[in-house]
Amino acid sequence: MTGEPAQADTTVLLTFAELTALLERIFVRHGVSPSNARILAENCAACERDGSHSHGIFRIPGYVSSLSSGWVDGTAVPVVEDTGGAFIRVDAKNGFAQPAFAAARDLLVGRAREYGIALLAVRRSHHFSALWPDVEPFAEKEGLIALSFVNSFACVVPHGGRKPVFGTNPIAFAAPRNGEPPFVFDQASSAMANGDVQIAAREGRLLPEGMGVDRNGNPTRDPKAVLDGGALVTFGGHKGSAIALMVEILGAALTGGYFSGEFDWSGFKGAQTPKTGQLFIVVDPERGGNHMFRERVSQITALVREAGQERLPGDRRFETRARSERRGIPLACTDYDMLSKLA
Amino acid sequence: MTGEPAQADTTVLLTFAELTALLERIFVRHGVSPSNARILAENCAACERDGSHSHGIFRIPGYVSSLSSGWVDGTAVPVVEDTGGAFIRVDAKNGFAQPAFAAARDLLVGRAREYGIALLAVRRSHHFSALWPDVEPFAEKEGLIALSFVNSFACVVPHGGRKPVFGTNPIAFAAPRNGEPPFVFDQASSAMANGDVQIAAREGRLLPEGMGVDRNGNPTRDPKAVLDGGALVTFGGHKGSAIALMVEILGAALTGGYFSGEFDWSGFKGAQTPKTGQLFIVVDPERGGNHMFRERVSQITALVREAGQERLPGDRRFETRARSERRGIPLACTDYDMLSKLA
Repeated sequence: MTGEPAQADTTVLLTFAELTALLERIFVRHGVSPSNARILAENCAACERDGSHSHGIFRIPGYVSSLSSGWVDGTAVPVVEDTGGAFIRVDAKNGFAQPAFAAARDLLVGRAREYGIALLAVRRSHHFSALWPDVEPFAEKEGLIALSFVNSFACVVPHGGRKPVFGTNPIAFAAPRNGEPPFVFDQASSAMANGDVQIAAREGRLLPEGMGVDRNGNPTRDPKAVLDGGALVTFGGHKGSAIALMVEILGAALTGGYFSGEFDWSGFKGAQTPKTGQLFIVVDPERGGNHMFRERVSQITALVREAGQERLPGDRRFETRARSERRGIPLACTDYDMLSKLA
Repeated sequence: MTGEPAQADTTVLLTFAELTALLERIFVRHGVSPSNARILAENCAACERDGSHSHGIFRIPGYVSSLSSGWVDGTAVPVVEDTGGAFIRVDAKNGFAQPAFAAARDLLVGRAREYGIALLAVRRSHHFSALWPDVEPFAEKEGLIALSFVNSFACVVPHGGRKPVFGTNPIAFAAPRNGEPPFVFDQASSAMANGDVQIAAREGRLLPEGMGVDRNGNPTRDPKAVLDGGALVTFGGHKGSAIALMVEILGAALTGGYFSGEFDWSGFKGAQTPKTGQLFIVVDPERGGNHMFRERVSQITALVREAGQERLPGDRRFETRARSERRGIPLACTDYDMLSKLA
């Protein structure tokens, strides 16, 4: 009735299992080992299911391009290094971060329960997705608090600077609640996410004011100018810049990974996945006898709503997920065709 | 030569030891136990020495007022609860956070070295100072990474909200460097620090645009309107708001402390110190064999400078500290008289 074409004409609806299977075939066909392909496919399908479009199927051509370039090793077998305490390291062996994380996840959960807090430092890893799929399950399935930090490729200028040093450098946080989904946020330290700049460029939209600079360091709203030698700025001025720097320190200096401006992919035409590092910190909130934690997280998030913040981080994602689970995950027919060809 | 009065006419210069001793006498005279007084005096003197004026001697009348009201117990003896792992709790027993922290600090360092990471959760504590004095020594003296989170009293509205829920909720971070002071930041999740609003009110200055709202939720630049039933906003819009909420979860829900809007000090006239909680996370960066960490932190901070960010967090503080150590800590004569009377 809105004058728009009926959805059924232009979209297909897939179940999570169907989309995952399709993406898995694409990954395997482009050189990813079956076990790694499964992990990447589930991760990407979860983003699409939840409406994280800039990290959903939109990223598949980038994955394929990076794999084809030889820059990232889809068959990498991560090596877990257990220091015997609450500090676990993983060498991702130039593979994707998610399989490296998956290889150490159970150990990390076990150590967090054993000691109350534990850390996982992943290096030589490529993270090309959202961060919330990494942290949310700790809260949802295990009742743990999780923090993660990942740096990416230099596309963000430090506050007052002229040259990109930082990646978009997101931080993700998850905490369990009582009788409702966990509180989860996943936010770039840049004023906006790089994936959203790419989508704006593709769709020919201008960026909001104050998001980026061109290659000469001058403010611009043109997403193409930002992507072509320009850069984003940090969110919240010098404070966001301090957070972006902390992410370089935790995601790269601590893990033994590359800084966002450090790795050299110039010899790999089509490479798009940043080879950096990723840090996880996981806490068992009940250690020491605090059995009220979930209830307290529910209380404070309710207070924030009552104060007038209508949408909390994660709200839209959980709503979109529920809709996708009810009706299926909608893909534009053109996107579905693109994926089918790649599979 | 500038037409301003010569500094010597209007200021006195004290050594750190002299200022500490003076402040210690004030604390003891107003009901703080000698051991707690020493800790608070050193903390406050360090802020004044380093130019953190909003947490230096400016805060002394607030300390005195809170102590006199009976709201905070200056003689509290904190109780350390060792869970036998890397998760340590402290009940501050309605005393200040710094003595509670001091009571568990060695244990925290020991556990961080033993396991690679450790956590300290302080509850029923009053934090009325800057956070950087808490985290900087971990990096400077022990070569450890430290993070701290503390909530305060409700004076910040969630993004898009009308009612204050959050405190200024600072995060502090410290990481050691090679041959230079550690990289340290300490930043409120509010658009500005509450202490700076108080100073602006005292000096009759307007706030910058976009910092606060009045009691009706309307934007204002009047610091008195912000302090009198109004509120600050979070830095960086919804992202700063997510961080402020994380600080409530980590500083209060996890520790067992009060949320910023939860404690009731209405029966204690003159009470100014927020009774909340504080969390520390401390990491041994060399665990697992990464001996390059300090060097890497030096590298990334140098890259940020080269990119054009002239001042990094902490720069001004270390410069002011060096000047104070060379020439003495300058106090306005009026302030010195005020302190002398209180002692």
